[in-house]
Amino acid sequence: MSRDYATLVNHQVRLAARPVGLPKPGDWRHAEEAVPPPEEGGLLVEVLAISIDPAMRGWMNEGRSYIAPVALGDVMRAGGIGRVLASRHPGYAVGDLVSGSTGVQQYWSVPAEQMHSAGPAKIDLRLGSIGQWLNVLGMPGMTAYFGLTEIGRPRAGETLVVSGASGAVGQTVGQLGKILGLRVVGIAGGPAKCAWVVEELGFDACIDYKAPAAAGVERWDAVREGLARHCPDGVDIYFDNVGGDILDAVLARIRRHARIVICGAISQYNADGGVAGPKNYLALLVQRARMEGMVVFDWAERYPQAVAELAGYLKDGRMKSREDIVAGGVAAFPATLLRLFSGENFGKLVLEIAPV
Amino acid sequence: MSRDYATLVNHQVRLAARPVGLPKPGDWRHAEEAVPPPEEGGLLVEVLAISIDPAMRGWMNEGRSYIAPVALGDVMRAGGIGRVLASRHPGYAVGDLVSGSTGVQQYWSVPAEQMHSAGPAKIDLRLGSIGQWLNVLGMPGMTAYFGLTEIGRPRAGETLVVSGASGAVGQTVGQLGKILGLRVVGIAGGPAKCAWVVEELGFDACIDYKAPAAAGVERWDAVREGLARHCPDGVDIYFDNVGGDILDAVLARIRRHARIVICGAISQYNADGGVAGPKNYLALLVQRARMEGMVVFDWAERYPQAVAELAGYLKDGRMKSREDIVAGGVAAFPATLLRLFSGENFGKLVLEIAPV
Repeated sequence: MSRDYATLVNHQVRLAARPVGLPKPGDWRHAEEAVPPPEEGGLLVEVLAISIDPAMRGWMNEGRSYIAPVALGDVMRAGGIGRVLASRHPGYAVGDLVSGSTGVQQYWSVPAEQMHSAGPAKIDLRLGSIGQWLNVLGMPGMTAYFGLTEIGRPRAGETLVVSGASGAVGQTVGQLGKILGLRVVGIAGGPAKCAWVVEELGFDACIDYKAPAAAGVERWDAVREGLARHCPDGVDIYFDNVGGDILDAVLARIRRHARIVICGAISQYNADGGVAGPKNYLALLVQRARMEGMVVFDWAERYPQAVAELAGYLKDGRMKSREDIVAGGVAAFPATLLRLFSGENFGKLVLEIAPV
Repeated sequence: MSRDYATLVNHQVRLAARPVGLPKPGDWRHAEEAVPPPEEGGLLVEVLAISIDPAMRGWMNEGRSYIAPVALGDVMRAGGIGRVLASRHPGYAVGDLVSGSTGVQQYWSVPAEQMHSAGPAKIDLRLGSIGQWLNVLGMPGMTAYFGLTEIGRPRAGETLVVSGASGAVGQTVGQLGKILGLRVVGIAGGPAKCAWVVEELGFDACIDYKAPAAAGVERWDAVREGLARHCPDGVDIYFDNVGGDILDAVLARIRRHARIVICGAISQYNADGGVAGPKNYLALLVQRARMEGMVVFDWAERYPQAVAELAGYLKDGRMKSREDIVAGGVAAFPATLLRLFSGENFGKLVLEIAPV
């Protein structure tokens, strides 16, 4: 506790404006501040890597959603992993690796009052890499696990469709679906992602939503055609990460008593003309089906159980993971976030803040 | 069985064209045919009254929905009540009153093979009038009962909103909600319907979606304003009969873990530009809520239980009903159906085919 933090400078990304449509670099500003020593009962954490998530776009909007928006001027919210630099809490030692709501900054000062609710959880690199702790063993994996098992309620032999199939949530949803005995069809953008999902992850098929359609047909006809080919008997569970036209295409093919898990709608987050509602929602009536939203935080008490199960699958090789780790530190945050919305990333997008 | 049916003429309404948008009289044609004596194991039924339902619009469309479409040239499908004129089935006697899929015609010949599946069910006028057997004790009541209890899963003290509140399904949904200890807010068109729902049926409030809005605001602002006033803590259960803007207005106010029962979407059935999807569907995610469709036929085995319970409420005065009975016989069918879509009817719409 004798180390002098006065020499450290905390580079941060703070929210400067509420974006309309796609965020632009000017919606944030760079800030630098001194690093205070931790208070009694608190921690100082050096941030190593942060998770880049579609949900970040929603946090930039005004108005309460499932979580309060980031206030203008505040450090941009992010989940991340860091190393304890200084501890005044008996449960943590210098050098411990922790995950938590670090924010887009180099140093995370955790006050004593946050050590319970939004406080850091220790992570164990024997169970997975830092990238995997932000992916399969982190929020995306927890989302996949509880969304599929608790909202999707799968029964062996059913057909599961998952959009964003090579993304953070989708890759775990699909592999968990295979472990649970489902037929799994992914939807992803581009032949490389589709090939990876089928050949490496073992999905039964993957539909390339970017595949060129015949002249004169709309782009998402590739999805409709793919669903007809790969889900000839219809869809029992749809795990939706994207919304929009793809949600409508799947609704048109759901089976009796289907379950649609609304996990996200990345195609709609930047829609400045407003969200497009699913025109085919009356398929829910015809098919006596259900569409249900989920927020991962509701399952926090059961994270340890899910982490243990998923870490077991990583260890025995039944589950693979792919992280797209971008170097560049906090300054690279705006450009990295935009890669999510263009679909450029391949796998769970992670921004490295400091080398391990 | 000696009666001569050769003198009877069966006036019928047959489907002539598949409508685009609102049906028009030319979409049906009048037909007359002789009445054959019943076959061994079958019945001949004189139709007394038929139910006029929003679902009829869907049955006129091509393409399979939850039930096959009415084929071009076939008698228009309708549920109705009739009196047995001749019986060659041991379970039915001349004079028995029965309900079933009579069609829009004066005489319903039930072949032996239909006596089980789509065959007639005997009704007892001590439990309710013919109008009530097409309303609370018929399909609308069964829809209300199973939709609210099984899909809505109400808990005493919750807030229920029901659209089409004075209509066939809505009136029973709301009254059953009160019996189950819910706070009940209806949505209906016009002050007379709203007053009836509150003063006669005991709803806690009713929002008039046709109420004039302040200059420059859209019509359904009356709904948003009413929901804010009457559901200050949000909506736990929404029983949706209408879809469209009203569904979006309610979605904007659902509470955590809300259930939306998709029973119908009368505002959308004649939309020739396609159905409008609920733009606010991401409220399902934010509120961890569920939207689920239901089709009453799935609960057929439990109709007797529901009829017994609802008849008890009619008898002890806890449940009231209102039927809007139109005279005029089969020739009045097209104009009567159109009254549903203009919202002109007040209560369950019934077309009298023959005086009792």
